Amino acid sequence: MSMSIAVAGASGYAGGEILRLLLGHPRVASGEVTIGALTAGGNAGTLLGAHQPHLFPLADRVLADTTAEVLAGHDVVFLALPHGTSGPIADALPPSTLVIDCGADFRLSDAQEWTRFYGTPHAGTWPYGLPEIPGNRDVLSGATRIAVPGCYPTVSILSLLPAVTARVVESAVTVVAVSGTSGAGRSTRIDLLASEVIGSARAYGVAGAHRHNPEIAQALSAAAGEPVSVSFTPVLVPMARGILATCTARTSATADEVRAIYEKAYGDEPFVHLLPDDRLPTTGSVIGSNSAALSVSVDERAQTLVVVGAIDNLTKGTGGAAVQSMNLAMGFAENEGLSTVGVAP
Amino acid sequence: MSMSIAVAGASGYAGGEILRLLLGHPRVASGEVTIGALTAGGNAGTLLGAHQPHLFPLADRVLADTTAEVLAGHDVVFLALPHGTSGPIADALPPSTLVIDCGADFRLSDAQEWTRFYGTPHAGTWPYGLPEIPGNRDVLSGATRIAVPGCYPTVSILSLLPAVTARVVESAVTVVAVSGTSGAGRSTRIDLLASEVIGSARAYGVAGAHRHNPEIAQALSAAAGEPVSVSFTPVLVPMARGILATCTARTSATADEVRAIYEKAYGDEPFVHLLPDDRLPTTGSVIGSNSAALSVSVDERAQTLVVVGAIDNLTKGTGGAAVQSMNLAMGFAENEGLSTVGVAP
Amino acid sequence: MSMSIAVAGASGYAGGEILRLLLGHPRVASGEVTIGALTAGGNAGTLLGAHQPHLFPLADRVLADTTAEVLAGHDVVFLALPHGTSGPIADALPPSTLVIDCGADFRLSDAQEWTRFYGTPHAGTWPYGLPEIPGNRDVLSGATRIAVPGCYPTVSILSLLPAVTARVVESAVTVVAVSGTSGAGRSTRIDLLASEVIGSARAYGVAGAHRHNPEIAQALSAAAGEPVSVSFTPVLVPMARGILATCTARTSATADEVRAIYEKAYGDEPFVHLLPDDRLPTTGSVIGSNSAALSVSVDERAQTLVVVGAIDNLTKGTGGAAVQSMNLAMGFAENEGLSTVGVAP
Amino acid sequence: MSMSIAVAGASGYAGGEILRLLLGHPRVASGEVTIGALTAGGNAGTLLGAHQPHLFPLADRVLADTTAEVLAGHDVVFLALPHGTSGPIADALPPSTLVIDCGADFRLSDAQEWTRFYGTPHAGTWPYGLPEIPGNRDVLSGATRIAVPGCYPTVSILSLLPAVTARVVESAVTVVAVSGTSGAGRSTRIDLLASEVIGSARAYGVAGAHRHNPEIAQALSAAAGEPVSVSFTPVLVPMARGILATCTARTSATADEVRAIYEKAYGDEPFVHLLPDDRLPTTGSVIGSNSAALSVSVDERAQTLVVVGAIDNLTKGTGGAAVQSMNLAMGFAENEGLSTVGVAP
Repeated sequence: MSMSIAVAGASGYAGGEILRLLLGHPRVASGEVTIGALTAGGNAGTLLGAHQPHLFPLADRVLADTTAEVLAGHDVVFLALPHGTSGPIADALPPSTLVIDCGADFRLSDAQEWTRFYGTPHAGTWPYGLPEIPGNRDVLSGATRIAVPGCYPTVSILSLLPAVTARVVESAVTVVAVSGTSGAGRSTRIDLLASEVIGSARAYGVAGAHRHNPEIAQALSAAAGEPVSVSFTPVLVPMARGILATCTARTSATADEVRAIYEKAYGDEPFVHLLPDDRLPTTGSVIGSNSAALSVSVDERAQTLVVVGAIDNLTKGTGGAAVQSMNLAMGFAENEGLSTVGVAP
Repeated sequence: MSMSIAVAGASGYAGGEILRLLLGHPRVASGEVTIGALTAGGNAGTLLGAHQPHLFPLADRVLADTTAEVLAGHDVVFLALPHGTSGPIADALPPSTLVIDCGADFRLSDAQEWTRFYGTPHAGTWPYGLPEIPGNRDVLSGATRIAVPGCYPTVSILSLLPAVTARVVESAVTVVAVSGTSGAGRSTRIDLLASEVIGSARAYGVAGAHRHNPEIAQALSAAAGEPVSVSFTPVLVPMARGILATCTARTSATADEVRAIYEKAYGDEPFVHLLPDDRLPTTGSVIGSNSAALSVSVDERAQTLVVVGAIDNLTKGTGGAAVQSMNLAMGFAENEGLSTVGVAP
Repeated sequence: MSMSIAVAGASGYAGGEILRLLLGHPRVASGEVTIGALTAGGNAGTLLGAHQPHLFPLADRVLADTTAEVLAGHDVVFLALPHGTSGPIADALPPSTLVIDCGADFRLSDAQEWTRFYGTPHAGTWPYGLPEIPGNRDVLSGATRIAVPGCYPTVSILSLLPAVTARVVESAVTVVAVSGTSGAGRSTRIDLLASEVIGSARAYGVAGAHRHNPEIAQALSAAAGEPVSVSFTPVLVPMARGILATCTARTSATADEVRAIYEKAYGDEPFVHLLPDDRLPTTGSVIGSNSAALSVSVDERAQTLVVVGAIDNLTKGTGGAAVQSMNLAMGFAENEGLSTVGVAP
Repeated sequence: MSMSIAVAGASGYAGGEILRLLLGHPRVASGEVTIGALTAGGNAGTLLGAHQPHLFPLADRVLADTTAEVLAGHDVVFLALPHGTSGPIADALPPSTLVIDCGADFRLSDAQEWTRFYGTPHAGTWPYGLPEIPGNRDVLSGATRIAVPGCYPTVSILSLLPAVTARVVESAVTVVAVSGTSGAGRSTRIDLLASEVIGSARAYGVAGAHRHNPEIAQALSAAAGEPVSVSFTPVLVPMARGILATCTARTSATADEVRAIYEKAYGDEPFVHLLPDDRLPTTGSVIGSNSAALSVSVDERAQTLVVVGAIDNLTKGTGGAAVQSMNLAMGFAENEGLSTVGVAP
């Protein structure tokens, strides 16, 4: 009997990305896994093809309402919903159902931090779907509730974790991350209009205001074993996908020492690519793939570690991490349906 | 008798921008100032219209060779040439000619730093064409040799100068600046092809390798009265014009204290716009103008000053600064031919 | 006593462009003309600076409600409002006030065509603000009501008018025009989001459905003295400004014959640039300027005239045409405040 | 024993796309097919990773020189070389080797046309790798020499073939196709620089000058059984991938009649998607996929058929067609390694 998957929020960007990846998943191709209910909020009742014109095989699927009733009965449920809305739905689904939440609701362990940044009561904390954090694969294996990390946290944590864990940097890090617009979702906001974005770069959520701030700090602090202060600035630039994070921290280590730490940390990781010394990451090289590309340098004059990390915010930063987490939870090979090879140029 | 201006490097982006601004300069419109020789390297002998299709009034001008002979006899000579080539030409021009160099040759005062970053002997040090540095207007007034600042230094210095001068930040600053491609000039490099740039962001010159590093450090150290360490990372993003610099430094000052410092520093500056607390700069709002837009914030948790600055790299970052400097040197009103109003969206 | 100007719809793209041009108009600079009321719909009560961050000199202006009361008392009123809303406001303004409508309401002379495409009763027909149509300057001089042409019609008519007038082409023309997104206005539509537009091209309003269709046909038919059939397809591409129209029609004329016709038609036009045979227009060369750049070719094998035209949809296509029309109506020099020189690259 | 594939021109865009698809091909994944020699011109001796940073699994491959000796001994050779260079290499390879040429050399059957547009002697005519042309699958099955169609011809022919074959349109068609820059290859040309392309649209090769003109005419004339005249205008727009072709022709057929013809023609095609009446193609929906999306409309007033077609120029327009052709020639399932699902947004 085949396993079935439902996707809530199928008309949005995260939902669309999950479906794109599932359509290329070998267990879907083989029929072992089927794509079941596709749900939406305001778009319920319309055809998926009207919203996701690239998903030709599912073009004629009618979007159902996002309710626990519709989602129940599936083996796996992906939630790609606005922040703060996953809690009640997850509560209503059987504990045995694998629920993978792409929203922020279950990422933070500190209820106060949640409320400070999101303004609502804390829903809880689920296993964190970033398998590259040491120990996390064990946690995710067989899990039935998984919180997919935010896109900025994913690249920031991957970029800084080895250095912070090895304590070769001060416990104050600076991340400036440029991002494409799809990270903001399919929302009709004036500042996301093409006319506003094309030909322009702008920072937002500066000075600690962005909601991904506590998520980055949480992971880095856990790794350091002490509070790590994070200065995080996101910058919106004219592209649809991709995040490039420039991560700096004071260090007295040499470039060779740091490189050795990163090589050890990521040598066996299938999706993290530590680039040779003469290359720097581009978001263009990871679009559509589950890859993270990293460069590691030390500015000796400024005694600063500079790690540049690139991911596709919708793939490794959302949908790819969701599928990677599902693979681990279900006991599939971790990279099934996930490519290291993006679409370039 | 009218005053004449020559532009060397007229087929490049900096030269084109100077000409664009001169064509809108009221003294050119009135005939008091005339646009004389336009010169080029490999493009000599061709029509300007083949290279600068937007400069319709000058379309039929034939580009001459860039030689001191051709440039001599003009009252003002703008040099928009590759780094390292301005020296000999400037030497051969009369001391009374106003020579404004958009290259890096005469920006640095430390000959060792020059050689370290540019690899050639140091040509000298000229007055620095950033009028917003306190005291610089006096230096520029009546000067006959002016070095136009680099584009990244312009926005970085404007963003950090007040805080560094007031010593409310530590003497180690971090600048991550996203830039459009025109800053790299009209050079046929694979990595500047549209196919490589569109849909992708990439860092370059990381870890202190970029040539603008010592220029930023020079100005900030002079202002601080002590060495300021600069961690500078440029990031290329898919737009033609504009730089957005995210500048951070540890601080124990409050947001109000810092804002007061910036208001005092820039309250009377015609081209520097300190934005209200609820707004952040966009490069889109300064394209084609000589404006710099700044926001000032303090991340209290991370005890970090965050200044975001936006300029058009070709206008305030090059051609506009060149014309602003010319205006000061010639005794014209500083803002003649320069608008605070860009072209948006 | 100074002349005053009001702009209705000041927080939109067309309104912003009119204000950008007015801020550079010499009669505003001299104080002879003042910028009076700025009005908006939903944005009334907010600061202009929140919507038009590039208009620094007007940043602190509070937007008033768009009502005839607010607009009355000005010598010139620019209406940059949604289609179908100008009529009642114009009716309520004194006949002596110069009202320049950037909407479609008063462009069509055929009431049936209006209703067919816009669905509402026809408001009337005003002088058509395209001075390059022979005879139109006389009509516009001293006019007190002017309809600014649509952006697609402007470039299509300029591209085809000489050939159609000289009857060297068949009376069925094909126009495929690629456009930036600002032509669609500052509307929160999913299909105008940066994520949807960047990296994608799409046609819309195909097969005669676009509202600019009858406007193009009206002008060309008038010039031909017989009905001209227009196949018009607009294509949205990832840029904020600019329209490039490829206009074709069967012809038996030679390239030389056609070029002679266009040279005669546009030889004295200040804003229409007929390019030499070896150059083709780019929208990049006209951004921010009031220029139209045209190339004229004949495909001898296919016996087809190919005219490619480029304008900035917000300048020559809207705001520039509005100011040009104002200049003519008020007896100013036609090109005051309007440049032929765009911002490139 | 496994089958081996060589790719000549592996550091270019077409070569990179072929490799991207091969890395996802199930027979490569299973080891049945191996990726052998990768060759280049000027880049020989360097690592593939320096040129194709997205192809992580092949990053350490050293590029060999493009010679027949290097390529010989492989079962399949893909040639992704500059036009005019495939002939001698193909001649030197064994007749049993499957040679798939992505260049133009073997596409045209008329030697005069070849010489007129390419300036060199005609190399010959190979089976044309567009399986969607009726009868072509038989020709391609078991072929050992295949000419991959040009990108513009692919979308133009797919868009117009059913109508031309059914003779419901006049034998003079007009195609205006907007394209991303990757179609021009990885060539260091000033006019392909990001600074020139971003924010700008431009036509090129107008009035019958583009080399893809005779290729389109050849296929349409063969289908019509009479000469079809083609007016073709390519327009470069600011995106890296994708072509959107607006194809028009006079018709007296109704929309329903035309739709029926297209439904019949493409009902069983795996990669051609005829969109419902209320949708129009976007290039964004086919990026990275082998899909072609078509809309069919009739402008009844202008008596004009309007077909809009979208493909990814590097996938269905080059590398995907090459792999599709290989699959047919080798007796694999036609869609192995080829997805109908692109990466969006």
